Amino acid sequence: MTKSETLSDIGEFGLIDKLRRTVHSGRARLAIGDDAAVLPYSRSRDELLAADMLAEGVHFKKTTDPRLIGRKAINSCISDIAAMGGLPRFAVISLGVPARRPVKDIRELYAGINSAARKFDCGIVGGDTIKSPKLIINVAMTGLVQRSQLVRRSGARPGHIIMVTGPLGNSLKSGHHLKFTPRVDAAQYLVKHFKPSAMIDVSDGFLADLAHILEESGVGARIYEDRLPMRQGATLRRALCDGEDFELLFTLTKTKAAKLLTAKTRGLRFYPVGEITAKGLTFMTKKTSAITLKHRGYDHYRR
Amino acid sequence: MTKSETLSDIGEFGLIDKLRRTVHSGRARLAIGDDAAVLPYSRSRDELLAADMLAEGVHFKKTTDPRLIGRKAINSCISDIAAMGGLPRFAVISLGVPARRPVKDIRELYAGINSAARKFDCGIVGGDTIKSPKLIINVAMTGLVQRSQLVRRSGARPGHIIMVTGPLGNSLKSGHHLKFTPRVDAAQYLVKHFKPSAMIDVSDGFLADLAHILEESGVGARIYEDRLPMRQGATLRRALCDGEDFELLFTLTKTKAAKLLTAKTRGLRFYPVGEITAKGLTFMTKKTSAITLKHRGYDHYRR
Repeated sequence: MTKSETLSDIGEFGLIDKLRRTVHSGRARLAIGDDAAVLPYSRSRDELLAADMLAEGVHFKKTTDPRLIGRKAINSCISDIAAMGGLPRFAVISLGVPARRPVKDIRELYAGINSAARKFDCGIVGGDTIKSPKLIINVAMTGLVQRSQLVRRSGARPGHIIMVTGPLGNSLKSGHHLKFTPRVDAAQYLVKHFKPSAMIDVSDGFLADLAHILEESGVGARIYEDRLPMRQGATLRRALCDGEDFELLFTLTKTKAAKLLTAKTRGLRFYPVGEITAKGLTFMTKKTSAITLKHRGYDHYRR
Repeated sequence: MTKSETLSDIGEFGLIDKLRRTVHSGRARLAIGDDAAVLPYSRSRDELLAADMLAEGVHFKKTTDPRLIGRKAINSCISDIAAMGGLPRFAVISLGVPARRPVKDIRELYAGINSAARKFDCGIVGGDTIKSPKLIINVAMTGLVQRSQLVRRSGARPGHIIMVTGPLGNSLKSGHHLKFTPRVDAAQYLVKHFKPSAMIDVSDGFLADLAHILEESGVGARIYEDRLPMRQGATLRRALCDGEDFELLFTLTKTKAAKLLTAKTRGLRFYPVGEITAKGLTFMTKKTSAITLKHRGYDHYRR
């Protein structure tokens, strides 16, 4: 590393990767490197802890409806908890607010927070409010998970089927990134009836988040273009690389996958998009030719 | 409320006060309105949850040593946990970082975080990293407290003695606000041997934080100028109104106070500075004249 290296050079993932190797993680069961940390709670349950920070100009615009900002902040964190197989419990909200921002906006932001929190029975129990040049919001959230239902990123094995819970791409332009509902119902259905071997929520982008599973599991994948569910207006590139879909991306044994695809899922949708291989990442185009891909996805510092 | 009201008009406390009445707090034992939220954990223990956000230009300068920023961020949160009678356990760190900030600075910031976390065995278990125009850091921390040792802001009663653990004022100029050690030892000593009736850490300023205790307890106070311990370089006004001393401010029954002041405290210092009254806030000057004060302290939006 040279002295002048900046975040733009190494990227967010590079940084996190460097740091996770050095910090004191105490008695955590699982620390940095998944959607949420896993902490000891009781004999049968673990506590989950996750945080998401959203900033004006990066995750929303100055003109974005404050209710939607509040909603998105809570729901992003709930999505992390859900992707571990857990349910949200409590959250603390830190707000950086420009001094001239109308109080009305902050009330509306809290109204958005409150209605999302109420929907999933997540108690808003405190936080901090400071002055800041631009609006910034951090949500830190605890959740609980039955230990038998905990799903990490690291359990995918060759032969497992890769699935997603909904359409990918074009989340930012379509407004989906503000209005999505976290896939708590789908996650709970899965961990109770067809426990996935690995799971993550698609926040950095399908390929980037798939890469997290592949890296943590030490495996590869084959993805089929014609099976990828795409959001209206999304190109293939956007479906693969855009961030903030907030769908679940998970892997299942073949047997479970076959059963899931014929099961009564009470309206929940699951789309098989490929399978886990021993290594590499292969993309099968509609003409059944194979392309070897590099992992790519959203990185705050590389756009 | 008029449409044009901004945060500068109502102030941070005004805002928090408005919001705490409206949010869904779930099954929290104690939500917004103390140093940390109190959440159900086990038969004999409660979980604590606190968050602190620090921003460049508000809590530190662009040129501040990143190690000290990291240290302060962790220690501010530990101070909140300590003031409830608890011990820190796990933390998640959210960082907003300018893209041009050298990686070296972020490594140093994490070194500061890590050494403070290690000192108090607080596991750093995750978080978020985003791009932001100025450096901003949020720490959310869980802690545990024996339920019998939990101290809130609301238990002060007329006749109780008001004490602090160290000198007040001039924290910013002297650098104390970056280099303080949170009063975990003093807090643990107190809750085990002389359980306070109310406790808070001095972050907003002595008078402002005393006011929090008075409001939550529904009582008043009399403070004696000649008993106030002052930091070198602090004027009386600074001792009363500056923020970020990170000392403990607590109340004790007269009997306990008398015992504490003659007890062997292993080097810990406790300074009686006044007593709780039925109402109002009276300040006794060195010439023993009484002045009635309005609560005043640090408010991000009113400077």
